[in-house]
Amino acid sequence: MINLKIVGFVLGILLIIEGFFMLFSVPVSLIYKEPDFWQITLACLITIGVGAALFFIYRKSSKDIGTREGYIIVSLGWVVSSFFGALPFYFTGAIPSYTDAFFETMSGFTTTGASILNDIEALSHGLLLWRSTTQWLGGMGIIVLTLVILPVLGFGGMQLFFAEVPGISSDKLHPRIKETAKRLWGIYLIFTLAEIILLTVGGMDLFDSVCHSFTTLATGGYSTKNASIAHYSSPYIQYVIIFFMYLAGVNFTLSYFALKLKFKPIFKDEEFRKYTFFILFFAVVIAVILALTTSQPLEKSFRDALFQVVSIITTTGFVTSDYLQWVPIGSVILFALMFFGGSTGSTGGGMKIARIVLLIKNSRLELKRLIHPNAVIPVRLNNQAISPQTMTNVLAFASFYVLIVMISVIIVSFMGYDLDTSFGAVVTSIGNIGPGIGDVGPVFNFSHFPSVGKWFLSFLMLIGRLELFTVLILFSRHFWKS
Amino acid sequence: MINLKIVGFVLGILLIIEGFFMLFSVPVSLIYKEPDFWQITLACLITIGVGAALFFIYRKSSKDIGTREGYIIVSLGWVVSSFFGALPFYFTGAIPSYTDAFFETMSGFTTTGASILNDIEALSHGLLLWRSTTQWLGGMGIIVLTLVILPVLGFGGMQLFFAEVPGISSDKLHPRIKETAKRLWGIYLIFTLAEIILLTVGGMDLFDSVCHSFTTLATGGYSTKNASIAHYSSPYIQYVIIFFMYLAGVNFTLSYFALKLKFKPIFKDEEFRKYTFFILFFAVVIAVILALTTSQPLEKSFRDALFQVVSIITTTGFVTSDYLQWVPIGSVILFALMFFGGSTGSTGGGMKIARIVLLIKNSRLELKRLIHPNAVIPVRLNNQAISPQTMTNVLAFASFYVLIVMISVIIVSFMGYDLDTSFGAVVTSIGNIGPGIGDVGPVFNFSHFPSVGKWFLSFLMLIGRLELFTVLILFSRHFWKS
Repeated sequence: MINLKIVGFVLGILLIIEGFFMLFSVPVSLIYKEPDFWQITLACLITIGVGAALFFIYRKSSKDIGTREGYIIVSLGWVVSSFFGALPFYFTGAIPSYTDAFFETMSGFTTTGASILNDIEALSHGLLLWRSTTQWLGGMGIIVLTLVILPVLGFGGMQLFFAEVPGISSDKLHPRIKETAKRLWGIYLIFTLAEIILLTVGGMDLFDSVCHSFTTLATGGYSTKNASIAHYSSPYIQYVIIFFMYLAGVNFTLSYFALKLKFKPIFKDEEFRKYTFFILFFAVVIAVILALTTSQPLEKSFRDALFQVVSIITTTGFVTSDYLQWVPIGSVILFALMFFGGSTGSTGGGMKIARIVLLIKNSRLELKRLIHPNAVIPVRLNNQAISPQTMTNVLAFASFYVLIVMISVIIVSFMGYDLDTSFGAVVTSIGNIGPGIGDVGPVFNFSHFPSVGKWFLSFLMLIGRLELFTVLILFSRHFWKS
Repeated sequence: MINLKIVGFVLGILLIIEGFFMLFSVPVSLIYKEPDFWQITLACLITIGVGAALFFIYRKSSKDIGTREGYIIVSLGWVVSSFFGALPFYFTGAIPSYTDAFFETMSGFTTTGASILNDIEALSHGLLLWRSTTQWLGGMGIIVLTLVILPVLGFGGMQLFFAEVPGISSDKLHPRIKETAKRLWGIYLIFTLAEIILLTVGGMDLFDSVCHSFTTLATGGYSTKNASIAHYSSPYIQYVIIFFMYLAGVNFTLSYFALKLKFKPIFKDEEFRKYTFFILFFAVVIAVILALTTSQPLEKSFRDALFQVVSIITTTGFVTSDYLQWVPIGSVILFALMFFGGSTGSTGGGMKIARIVLLIKNSRLELKRLIHPNAVIPVRLNNQAISPQTMTNVLAFASFYVLIVMISVIIVSFMGYDLDTSFGAVVTSIGNIGPGIGDVGPVFNFSHFPSVGKWFLSFLMLIGRLELFTVLILFSRHFWKS
């Protein structure tokens, strides 16, 4: 029997936390003398109220939590958070359609950054803050967040952690899960504060600095400006954001080492090295292309190239240059990078660098295996042999990813979109990036999609964010049997 | 030590055979009173001459042949055949550039059907016949052809067979390889003759019937007409071609059973059932879409849909309707089908239906495995458990395929092509289909590619035709060591 009561209990806690963070938007609204503070307050009260009700109804139930409950909590956590997180947009009338509001919020909590807003700057400050906060919360994961809370309440979170991070690196930052979560959270906070300070120093408004820092560290990409980061012509601001996007795409365990000034394990980490290599390699390639095909200064070509490569590979989705206006090879490379994603243990989406590296290595070794059919030739990562079981899982994940992309492209094109747009919308949604190609390119948005398309893409964001299996397992009849 | 002498010997035999088939174009040229008969004769003499020289030089060398020699012979076989097969086009001046002539011939021998000719109908009958013959020879495989010859010369062809057909079905049609080859060859011949007769009955010129039958059974798709099969408005002719494309995409082992009137193993074969299901399913979907979005008669919508679905999934590449003019969903489905390909043991290219079925099944079971992490849950095909080793191979093949497509798309877009065209050119080349999307769509061709692009796409055709590893293994340093 699945313990649905504990599911309700945990979701209750999640909603209370969500409502708490939503509350910050009320004073902001008041400070800026915006009339929508009471609708935001109403949304807060409903969210906290429902959360508290669930908490009190189920607080005395069994606290037995297993893997299956973990899967349900993780998936429903994102859905329920988005359901209530959409209320401020909906109640204030800033987003009149609930479908649109849900899309915008799911895009926030999954750190995607795809928007249906035609005029972002028309939003009130309260709503802009909430919009960025959804990404910040989603970024480190409501779940990782609650790893600090849940253990206090008396039960371990190991199963949850497993469900949330089914990545391939199970390196323990610290054996005790609660401590781990606290430390990761601390790093996240430090980085966010550091970026806020550096952006403010560069002349960015404090409010915008907070919002952009929230969405940078989450690799979310929501901006407070219609033109995204292109709004800020200051190279300093762009380089600061490049740096923090880059950090957000690194395994946070490594950042922890960095803050303790232990640099050796960082430079020995193969995923980190490949991640850095990919960024530099493709940034230089695109920079050369831009330098050869445009008349802009060399530094600008390099900055545009580096910004977009980092933004896309980390799945942030900020924009300083409309890459669809570049010569085709530029946008084709960026499109390919949309499959990559950040490192495991980062806030980035996509397939993750470690998987990409393993896939490439395995492909090369497959040739060696053909020559020596009887030899056992394992793939090595960080000089350690990867078990055949793990390698098969990575291969299965990749083929699942590609299959879902193909089927989804067909589904989206059923709505009348051409291949580029369908492909762009699907890949950017499942990879949690934000902008795509075609009619969902960097200067467009998702407002032109029909409702069914918005719900479908929201679903893709969800499964992409939760590494496919976590959500899809709920649709398997085996899950509910026995 | 790799026995390069036997490689030379076998290639010599291949060239003699190639020259022999080239010879048929000479009388055809004479019958139609075309002045290019002597250049074709010259090409024949050079091909046979070089072949005979190799044969006589190496005829007394060791006949030791191992797996590695097999790989070299298979890959070089295609390259060398294309090298000499291009001579008739080049000598006659019909294709003034040797790069173009090589592309056209490699496209023939790999049964791709991608062309650089802007006016196919301007070719002489001799050249048109040769162009179709390259596909016919490539179709069943010069190698399978030579499996009948080589054993007579005193050594078994098992390793060659392994290198040529590394598909996942190793079902033996008959234990003795020579008999097997002969029977497959017989079926191929019977089907070709049957199609010639049926097309002639339908009013198609005998010459065109022969050429089209050659390229249908090979799933090649070279037509003698600029408009491809759209040239023939007769529904009868189009249905006949649909039927034989369908047959060519079926495992020839099953066709052998069919000719012996044993139908039970055919209908029990899962790959055959899924292959038929995919065709019917997607044909009906597209037929409904065409019926809803065009004003043409219902039968025409169904015929167009069925023709293009069968043509693309079998990787033939004949065209009766410009699918890029359909509503986007139609061409998106066809583009997705370009990854599928025919059955294993057919002349079709692509990834093959069996692999696609295994990938889909494995993805679904991956969820079950997550729920029961300690249970061994194998994928089943034809009610037989697939070994984890085989499943890993299929996954590795698929990820290799997708990786190569991604890298190749980037390479092609470097030549200035947009995403659609790059994607279309790469997928249609590696899948051995013919037409793609974008600027290599069904009404375009590959003449606008730069030379380096033509060589690169020729290479993709080759590795796609030989199931990737067979060729790529030659580029591995492990192959040449020890």
